[in-house]
Amino acid sequence: MSRYGKRAGLIVHEEEPFNVETGSAALAEGPLTATDAFYVRSHGSVPEIHPAEWRLRVHGVVERELDLSLATLREAFRAREVTATLQCAGNRRAGLIAIREIPGEAPWGAGATGTATWTGVALADVLALARPLPGAAHVGFDGADLCPEAAPVQCFAGSIPLDKACRPEVLLAWGMNGEPLPPVHGAPLRAVVPGYIGARSVKWLDRIEIRSTACDGFFQHVVYRLVPEDGTPGPGEGMPLGLVALNADVLSPADGETITAGPLEVRGYAFAGGERYVARVDVSLDGGASWSQAELLDDLGPWAWRHWRIMLDFAPGEHEILVRAWDSSAATQPEDEAALWNPKGYVNNARPRVRVRAAPA
Amino acid sequence: MSRYGKRAGLIVHEEEPFNVETGSAALAEGPLTATDAFYVRSHGSVPEIHPAEWRLRVHGVVERELDLSLATLREAFRAREVTATLQCAGNRRAGLIAIREIPGEAPWGAGATGTATWTGVALADVLALARPLPGAAHVGFDGADLCPEAAPVQCFAGSIPLDKACRPEVLLAWGMNGEPLPPVHGAPLRAVVPGYIGARSVKWLDRIEIRSTACDGFFQHVVYRLVPEDGTPGPGEGMPLGLVALNADVLSPADGETITAGPLEVRGYAFAGGERYVARVDVSLDGGASWSQAELLDDLGPWAWRHWRIMLDFAPGEHEILVRAWDSSAATQPEDEAALWNPKGYVNNARPRVRVRAAPA
Repeated sequence: MSRYGKRAGLIVHEEEPFNVETGSAALAEGPLTATDAFYVRSHGSVPEIHPAEWRLRVHGVVERELDLSLATLREAFRAREVTATLQCAGNRRAGLIAIREIPGEAPWGAGATGTATWTGVALADVLALARPLPGAAHVGFDGADLCPEAAPVQCFAGSIPLDKACRPEVLLAWGMNGEPLPPVHGAPLRAVVPGYIGARSVKWLDRIEIRSTACDGFFQHVVYRLVPEDGTPGPGEGMPLGLVALNADVLSPADGETITAGPLEVRGYAFAGGERYVARVDVSLDGGASWSQAELLDDLGPWAWRHWRIMLDFAPGEHEILVRAWDSSAATQPEDEAALWNPKGYVNNARPRVRVRAAPA
Repeated sequence: MSRYGKRAGLIVHEEEPFNVETGSAALAEGPLTATDAFYVRSHGSVPEIHPAEWRLRVHGVVERELDLSLATLREAFRAREVTATLQCAGNRRAGLIAIREIPGEAPWGAGATGTATWTGVALADVLALARPLPGAAHVGFDGADLCPEAAPVQCFAGSIPLDKACRPEVLLAWGMNGEPLPPVHGAPLRAVVPGYIGARSVKWLDRIEIRSTACDGFFQHVVYRLVPEDGTPGPGEGMPLGLVALNADVLSPADGETITAGPLEVRGYAFAGGERYVARVDVSLDGGASWSQAELLDDLGPWAWRHWRIMLDFAPGEHEILVRAWDSSAATQPEDEAALWNPKGYVNNARPRVRVRAAPA
């Protein structure tokens, strides 16, 4: 067991702040990711919070400010459960770094994502008690984790539109996969914003601000923005990320693996993001000249990815497995990974390619 | 003036049923498309309806069936206005036909789309009066237009999820661009479902059915579905279309045009579909090796496309203008038009390419 209750064998990008990625084998275990294998993306140290002393302040453009204990949150609101995929905006950055370096950013593979069942209260119910006033348009989340990389140094924060905040799937969560939320995942309370980049599911929540404008902090106004290839990240530069873009990857076989020629099951995930669902996943062994449809596995509801599988026959020799997912708008992924390169290495959602060698049986 | 009040010069795909496309020049006139230039996609003849005798029946999985006159609709509910882009699923089919023929389908260019301000009542308000019962999950629209191409012959119909139907932007409309809705666009009443393919904005509405399942009629269960390239359209085959996929096109200059070398303004549209917005439009003159960001013009709200423009300098010689739009999930369009070919020719949302020759000034 490594730190923070995580199992051995995770891909550690950084010990402090703690940043670990789930390996493909652990993701392939099933559509729900085990808590001890779930990725952790943090920008500051895990803060020490005493649950009995902790309070959640709700303020800003509201009729009634709130100051709630964990006990009140649990007693005053209906408990809700949502199964949701979280995905870091830097998922699959390694593919972009292979094209051109991205200084200061970790080479996350395709495991900066995972799916869990989250338990808590609906943010909408808390907002209903606070009663947003006319002019309220965004809901900001403030964490307790001080982030040395931010300029100026500040706690992690982010906001979502009020319209999304009022939908029932957005939780203030204290539970993860049927157990208490572990400290490394944001205990005592975190936001869970299904369909949005992981950065909006702010951990170690201690303040919710109802605002007329989007969060202007470092982690929304300076980073977690898509800047054009030839642009320079800076305050307000590029487009703010929010909804997750359609993405997919192969979980098995691994890139570079030597397999035995003959039939082999190929497995992976696809995630539509936003309010969309995965409608189809195609796999090609001939560079996209022809495609076969993969079987979509367990449907865990509108906020979760879909695992998929397909049996393919591999002749002896070199192969490239090419995948494209389609979302419910019949949109599919872009082909060219190189053309997606951007200075911070976000949103690599190019069609994944996995090269394998099939050795004669 | 051609038939049905349409201006001369529209691209007529079919006289009966009436199918006309807006030319690029008319689309480029502004972000709101003039009614006399607005595209018409119909599968049957324009039905003759006497407004005074017309009734709207609302039935199905509801507590209270309704049978409403136009006068009651206007008097009993609050009038609402929404500016929304409609886009046919067959928009830009011509690009797919150029790759491989699609028998029986018209070669729509990039003008099977337009933006209008629609006036009517919120479907949600009518549903609130009817009170959907537990089990209600879809809202079906039935038109009065008999469609000979359907098997069996039937009136045009389609459904949307109840969740979407309850959102305030979905209208039952009697007005278009500040005038009474013209017969060819669905008078006395049509559905307007912003963000969805045009086929769900059913015209000549006479019945709304609240259902537990999606519409199983020809125009949803057999066609308007994306079938894999090697598949065969048939009942339930492929994925049902619904949300519009991110798309864009160049409105000026025209493909094949000879321009004068030097600076020239390039104009076009981009439409994100669904609940997304256009976040950025890039234009390249070097095949995608480098991109410049276009200026996004008038923002007509969350349900309308964005027109865009950019000044580019054209050296004498041949050029290809390549465009890619990005939506609010930071997803962009696929590159390869050929790979999007499908048996009915829907959802061509490949990055548009326009070839021009710049003659020395």
